[in-house]
Amino acid sequence: MPEPSIDVQRLWDSLMELARIGATDKGGVCRLALTEEDRRGRDLFVRWCEEAGCSVRVDAMGNIFARRPGRDDSLAPVLSGSHLDSQPTGGKFDGAYGVMAALEVVRTLNDHGIETERPVEIVSWTNEEGSRFAPAMVGSGVWAGAFDLDYGHSRQDADGVTLGEALQAIGYAGGSEAGRPRPSAYLEAHIEQGPILEAEDKTVGIVLGVQGIRWYEATVTGQDAHAGPTPMTGRRDALLASSKMIVAANQAGLGQAPDGRATVGVIRNKPNSTNVIPGEVFFTVDLRHPQVQGLDAMETALREHCDAIATESGTRLELKRIWDSPPVAFAERCIDAVRAGTQDFGYAHRDIYSGAGHDAVYVSRVAPTGMIFVPCEGGLSHNEEESATPDDLAAGCNVLLGALRRLAGA
Amino acid sequence: MPEPSIDVQRLWDSLMELARIGATDKGGVCRLALTEEDRRGRDLFVRWCEEAGCSVRVDAMGNIFARRPGRDDSLAPVLSGSHLDSQPTGGKFDGAYGVMAALEVVRTLNDHGIETERPVEIVSWTNEEGSRFAPAMVGSGVWAGAFDLDYGHSRQDADGVTLGEALQAIGYAGGSEAGRPRPSAYLEAHIEQGPILEAEDKTVGIVLGVQGIRWYEATVTGQDAHAGPTPMTGRRDALLASSKMIVAANQAGLGQAPDGRATVGVIRNKPNSTNVIPGEVFFTVDLRHPQVQGLDAMETALREHCDAIATESGTRLELKRIWDSPPVAFAERCIDAVRAGTQDFGYAHRDIYSGAGHDAVYVSRVAPTGMIFVPCEGGLSHNEEESATPDDLAAGCNVLLGALRRLAGA
Repeated sequence: MPEPSIDVQRLWDSLMELARIGATDKGGVCRLALTEEDRRGRDLFVRWCEEAGCSVRVDAMGNIFARRPGRDDSLAPVLSGSHLDSQPTGGKFDGAYGVMAALEVVRTLNDHGIETERPVEIVSWTNEEGSRFAPAMVGSGVWAGAFDLDYGHSRQDADGVTLGEALQAIGYAGGSEAGRPRPSAYLEAHIEQGPILEAEDKTVGIVLGVQGIRWYEATVTGQDAHAGPTPMTGRRDALLASSKMIVAANQAGLGQAPDGRATVGVIRNKPNSTNVIPGEVFFTVDLRHPQVQGLDAMETALREHCDAIATESGTRLELKRIWDSPPVAFAERCIDAVRAGTQDFGYAHRDIYSGAGHDAVYVSRVAPTGMIFVPCEGGLSHNEEESATPDDLAAGCNVLLGALRRLAGA
Repeated sequence: MPEPSIDVQRLWDSLMELARIGATDKGGVCRLALTEEDRRGRDLFVRWCEEAGCSVRVDAMGNIFARRPGRDDSLAPVLSGSHLDSQPTGGKFDGAYGVMAALEVVRTLNDHGIETERPVEIVSWTNEEGSRFAPAMVGSGVWAGAFDLDYGHSRQDADGVTLGEALQAIGYAGGSEAGRPRPSAYLEAHIEQGPILEAEDKTVGIVLGVQGIRWYEATVTGQDAHAGPTPMTGRRDALLASSKMIVAANQAGLGQAPDGRATVGVIRNKPNSTNVIPGEVFFTVDLRHPQVQGLDAMETALREHCDAIATESGTRLELKRIWDSPPVAFAERCIDAVRAGTQDFGYAHRDIYSGAGHDAVYVSRVAPTGMIFVPCEGGLSHNEEESATPDDLAAGCNVLLGALRRLAGA
């Protein structure tokens, strides 16, 4: 297969122009889903797609599809994209890269007059981040049938505005049926959002699947008491017990090295007063592993150690699993296409699992799916300092071009 | 000395009537300093003092003094009282007991027609708890010269209202000079706020002094990162490091058993999101010990262990001592009077140190001071379930009567 390659500068310039919409003082982006900033980002994307000769349609969840016809336009399309919304203090590349990379592939196909057997569609999914409307990935979730449309429309932001109202307000409540047509394959390019590729000096991550995720809520109940007159022995200190449990959660993750992850991200302490022994602590646990067995082993270790800590500290522990997203294995056909695209260009690469959720997780329920990762500086994401190099971004985009040409029949 | 004794039921009824002001659903009291509830509590107290024949004056910090004349009214008075403000979810007895006990002593002196050589004054100090305006004990602090009046008036609550404005708003910005006249002695009756008397079946605690208190603020800075893609090794998890430091603080306290106390009461975590490794944690440490050497030993252990944890976890620790209240030894003359009062009635008793700060700490800077403790159920205080028995409360009040008669010359 000959190797036309994408335009490094054009991809970078498109990302930088898009990043001006919602730009923050610290070099990041605040483009929350379905805000005025998101509308401006969508408008720019739609204009670029139309300039690239695509026909644009918007579905009832506001997901945007831009179609480049195939030689046989009755075939199911190959779909590629990501999302344009950001975290409140997000970066320039999370999501935006996957959309701009798919656009750059279409532009490159145009430049070289390459026809594909199947249509190629670029997608921008609505509200991937979940920062304005919970849950995350609700646009691709409704599209894939994980949620129904009424559920999607009824999601509310902190001010009580529904997602359906916000779609109307920015003019992106589309008419096309969510979920149709089904694509023949889906590819999503994304920054890694972790440090592994950078640390190992790899340019491309061939994503085999997505780690399973389990979320837990823990409430530890002790007895609040005055810090001065209460002797050390006999205290039932909910924060001390929780601190030991946080260390135990970390050990549960370390016990499943190198793939396991265990994180306590949230803690709330009552009454949270300097001179009062805490009586009640709430914390969350986030466990991730690419295999169910790994998740099970971490959960067992977590429960056993935390129960023992509760018993010896005279506290009561309630530990509930509130979310269970099973591991996802991507389609062999898509992984093979990504691997072949990587080999076309000879990039240093490694197989990798995604530790984060992506629209690709829901899409994989209804279509063969694959992902391409590129390094980001220090693994930082969901952060205004998120950074990636033009060359790495171009490399991932070239891999997408090669994989997509195979899947679409160029 | 003959032993008239106080009226058990009258003391109890006064406490219960006062507790209706700001009563909470769970049986506690919310009577934050200088709120409308505090005003109602003050008004009731002032009315009762006037009904008991006292003349009432209010100083510039809103401290209330109710005076029963002495045979020689030019002598410095013997002062007794405590505070009427409460924690947000406080109990019926913390502070209120000391004020009502002093009032009951005056009522009892009246009942028996007992004159004292010196005047007797009942005091209610402003903002002892520090829940609305920081710092705690600011009313007695200004009175004793630990703070100046401008500092006291400029304290702000969470809404930006100053203490001076709040005094005006409830009509308790008095004209009398703070700190005058100096009393010849000060006695404060209080619930123990700890479990020791109850555990040892003692009715009265003869308070020898107050533990020294040191407060610290710790900020642990790591690196926030996505919980999924970031491997366990190489994380700089500020909450995990802080959890280990909280365990280390506890061990520093245990190392100075039985008198040492070490408590982490406040923790704040950033960004406090389930799927983000925490990048910054703030927590407080409260160390207490009756001897400076004990405080020093705990501080050294705390710093050494926390520094080591910061180093090994790749985090940065800033640990600042923000408050240092040295141990207080009460006046022999006052301790002797309390001991004699206890012996008058034959109550089971023990010598004890106060683990909590009290107005008596500031007062002891300018006048001979003593305290009387009575048991409270389970040692609970700063809690709506705070509880004490009518008989124990009456016992402490009888001791106060006996001690005060000695100090005032009855």
